[in-house]
Amino acid sequence: MDFFSNDTLSDGDVQFLDTTLRDGEQAPGVSLSADQKAGIARRLDDAGVAAIEAGSACTSAAERETIRRVTGLGLDARITSFCRGVQRDVDLAMDCGVDGVHIVVPASDRHVEGKVGSTREEVVEKTSELVAYAKENDLWVEVIGEDGSRADYDYLEAQAEAAFEAGADRFCFADTVGHASPEEVYEGVSRLAEHGPVGVHTHDDLGLAVTNALAGIAAGADLVHGTINGIGERAGNVALEEMAIALWHCYDVEPMETEHLYEVASYVAEATGIPLPPNKAVSGENAFAHESGIHTDGTLKDERMYEPYPPEAVGRERRLVLGKHAGRAGVRAALAEHDVDLDDEALAAVVERVKTLGEKGRRVTDADLLTIAEDVRGRSRERRVELLDLTAASGSGTPSASVRVRVDGDERTAAGTGSGPVDAALSATRQALGSEFSFHLESYHVDAITGGTDAVVTVDVEVSRGDRSVSVSASDADITVASVTAVLDALDRLLPEVENEETVPADD
Amino acid sequence: MDFFSNDTLSDGDVQFLDTTLRDGEQAPGVSLSADQKAGIARRLDDAGVAAIEAGSACTSAAERETIRRVTGLGLDARITSFCRGVQRDVDLAMDCGVDGVHIVVPASDRHVEGKVGSTREEVVEKTSELVAYAKENDLWVEVIGEDGSRADYDYLEAQAEAAFEAGADRFCFADTVGHASPEEVYEGVSRLAEHGPVGVHTHDDLGLAVTNALAGIAAGADLVHGTINGIGERAGNVALEEMAIALWHCYDVEPMETEHLYEVASYVAEATGIPLPPNKAVSGENAFAHESGIHTDGTLKDERMYEPYPPEAVGRERRLVLGKHAGRAGVRAALAEHDVDLDDEALAAVVERVKTLGEKGRRVTDADLLTIAEDVRGRSRERRVELLDLTAASGSGTPSASVRVRVDGDERTAAGTGSGPVDAALSATRQALGSEFSFHLESYHVDAITGGTDAVVTVDVEVSRGDRSVSVSASDADITVASVTAVLDALDRLLPEVENEETVPADD
Repeated sequence: MDFFSNDTLSDGDVQFLDTTLRDGEQAPGVSLSADQKAGIARRLDDAGVAAIEAGSACTSAAERETIRRVTGLGLDARITSFCRGVQRDVDLAMDCGVDGVHIVVPASDRHVEGKVGSTREEVVEKTSELVAYAKENDLWVEVIGEDGSRADYDYLEAQAEAAFEAGADRFCFADTVGHASPEEVYEGVSRLAEHGPVGVHTHDDLGLAVTNALAGIAAGADLVHGTINGIGERAGNVALEEMAIALWHCYDVEPMETEHLYEVASYVAEATGIPLPPNKAVSGENAFAHESGIHTDGTLKDERMYEPYPPEAVGRERRLVLGKHAGRAGVRAALAEHDVDLDDEALAAVVERVKTLGEKGRRVTDADLLTIAEDVRGRSRERRVELLDLTAASGSGTPSASVRVRVDGDERTAAGTGSGPVDAALSATRQALGSEFSFHLESYHVDAITGGTDAVVTVDVEVSRGDRSVSVSASDADITVASVTAVLDALDRLLPEVENEETVPADD
Repeated sequence: MDFFSNDTLSDGDVQFLDTTLRDGEQAPGVSLSADQKAGIARRLDDAGVAAIEAGSACTSAAERETIRRVTGLGLDARITSFCRGVQRDVDLAMDCGVDGVHIVVPASDRHVEGKVGSTREEVVEKTSELVAYAKENDLWVEVIGEDGSRADYDYLEAQAEAAFEAGADRFCFADTVGHASPEEVYEGVSRLAEHGPVGVHTHDDLGLAVTNALAGIAAGADLVHGTINGIGERAGNVALEEMAIALWHCYDVEPMETEHLYEVASYVAEATGIPLPPNKAVSGENAFAHESGIHTDGTLKDERMYEPYPPEAVGRERRLVLGKHAGRAGVRAALAEHDVDLDDEALAAVVERVKTLGEKGRRVTDADLLTIAEDVRGRSRERRVELLDLTAASGSGTPSASVRVRVDGDERTAAGTGSGPVDAALSATRQALGSEFSFHLESYHVDAITGGTDAVVTVDVEVSRGDRSVSVSASDADITVASVTAVLDALDRLLPEVENEETVPADD
């Protein structure tokens, strides 16, 4: 089996059409503003993507405004719009100033007859007319045979032939419903490629979006339609960041600069509200994280030990994580980041406790690790900041909260208001601490809550002071208590220790 | 390009080794309890998976307890354990009563020399000894050449040859770091398959986990290692539910009964705390959801119009979703579910308003749709249940809340306590409503909160009374207010309308 035997693939042989702004936005629950679409388009252009489908001009006046926003950016990428097989759609697209159009016509009998209520001949005729019309108007034209993978390939060829005769720049083999096997894609694209330049549009309903896009390229397609993060109808389109990293790593072909991948993926996740799964290639939180003892140990010896390519290749950094599979090397490295150095016996004891904590399904945070290390060394670290009491009241009125904290032995009480109880409680906390104990909340995250209203809520924070930062997580049935506890635990860790008789040098 | 030319693949040619309980659990932050592992193993066995790797016996006493729990279930599947290349690991595995072991030995020089500090010859020698030892003890034995895809294939073959000579049942081609191109997997597996039965173990760092597993099968591998939901180190292992649906749909091969896929995937997501991405093949929330007008219209005409296989094939149901791309057919169908039938003009007006709401990035819930429909029909529906006032207090003491609601014109006040402020507020609400207005909270979900402590929180609920249920979402900076508002909006929709002079028949 050879996708690309004997180095037949070389740089420039594959280009990307990013369709995040059209197919991606068709994902249920996603709606992108004009600003967001412009932001995504600009980032795609910076990353060297050849073409960007900006939307369907026929959808609404608001959508057209947004497409104009993108065409007005003056990007290098070709900007296109999706059109159904009617002249009005092409006219609307032109009004938006796009460089080209994708004319989508039914290809399978199910779509020709069942959906559109037309005939094969009628569709071919209309396609030719419309392509000619678009070309007369100086548009770049791609015809997409919708549901092509379930079409009679003889008919699909006839469609492509007619489209090319009418002047189309390319024809796209569309696995619209994510139905095709790699063999079917290969055969379809091969046959179409005899008539002119071919694109391939794949969906992931069978988990085959990447496989099928590669099969399409192997068969001669030179334009891959896809979306960032693989968003789109149903299981989504092929994820362009995956195609980009696979083509670069395996075939030295770079249709999109890989260093930009993480930034674009994060931006799209934020804009669409569809979070990045932790185990997502390239962009997932864990993609470059190593937890298990064997892997962490190996990675510390040689960064490439458990990595196919360096995280920097996609604009990221490596993370070592502590948990139930922790080993000595990983724990030693994590402690070193906080300037803690332990002898072998103490280190072994810390590893055991880290593993035990991890077995409870807990993330082991910086604060957990440092607490364990102190405990093992028999040091009693005196807390400098402590929550004594918290009351938050909210509902129909202005949310308010009061806190009582102990700071270096001093009790301090303060109240505050906010947009909600957590915000009010944090405001009261800052007030009570005063400017001397100020801190910066680098990140605040609450996992999705599913189940009942009595579910325990876990709050993860990263808090910094100066150039040091600490991660802490806290859980409580009350989100306000969990939030304040996490922040104060973190702050306490960031304050220099007060001298007391039990303090011993760190190298004990 | 042919993965499987001329129907060379037939049922029984491919089996699955599920390694969710070992590789999957190595994902950062995941820790499964013995009950959860047993629950997953039982479901995998029900689904007909051939082999289940239950864990690494060497990890800890707790892990061994868990493996024993799985071996004690009396499942049909072969239960195995992961062993490093040392006799102690094999002994520990045997103590747990497993049927077989995977002996993992370094294959690439990077791992042989850099990680283990050994030599190629020494590794081969030790492997032979250990395989012989395991076979003497009646274990089924698979040798895994770790980092095999980056190994010298001549050496990998020598390793496999020695393993088979010593009695190993199979050898596994491991793309441990997710580095290989499909061509490299194909070549490696082809060469190994000349020596005996071969398995293939792929990772998704390049988005190629599925492609490479298929390439491995095409080259002669008959055992695919993978995890449910593709969890695992870094970007994870190949997702078995994707392999299962692809093999079934494209090649009529069923190493795992597809009807079980959704149940197993949901169970693993719940147990691991790693949620299912909405655009995940087979199991994602949107995998069988249709939002855009064209797609919904098509699907209502013919269910297969935009689906490669029916949702029932994986144990699921189809969903039509309303949003910015809504069309007439979809809106009409959604209204019909609530027994609302509108004339064409009113329907067009509702569609416009649904699209406008969707453009704001909002999920359009049942309650939103019904409110719009009433508004368009100029009907003033009198609310029967309404929140007038809410106060929740929480913190260091027992969380408590009071509510004032209007129920059929009557004001009612009540207080309640709970495990947190939301729980207390819901308890107070139920108290105020009394048994006559009881309801069941079918689901309660809060999206993950990222950003600051003042982020707006969106609560989605599904509430039922008798055999009707309604979905509502509500947003507020205060999670308690959002929760009670959502529940009361839903309840109000579920109560039969009170007769008043403005009420007109539903078919106006």
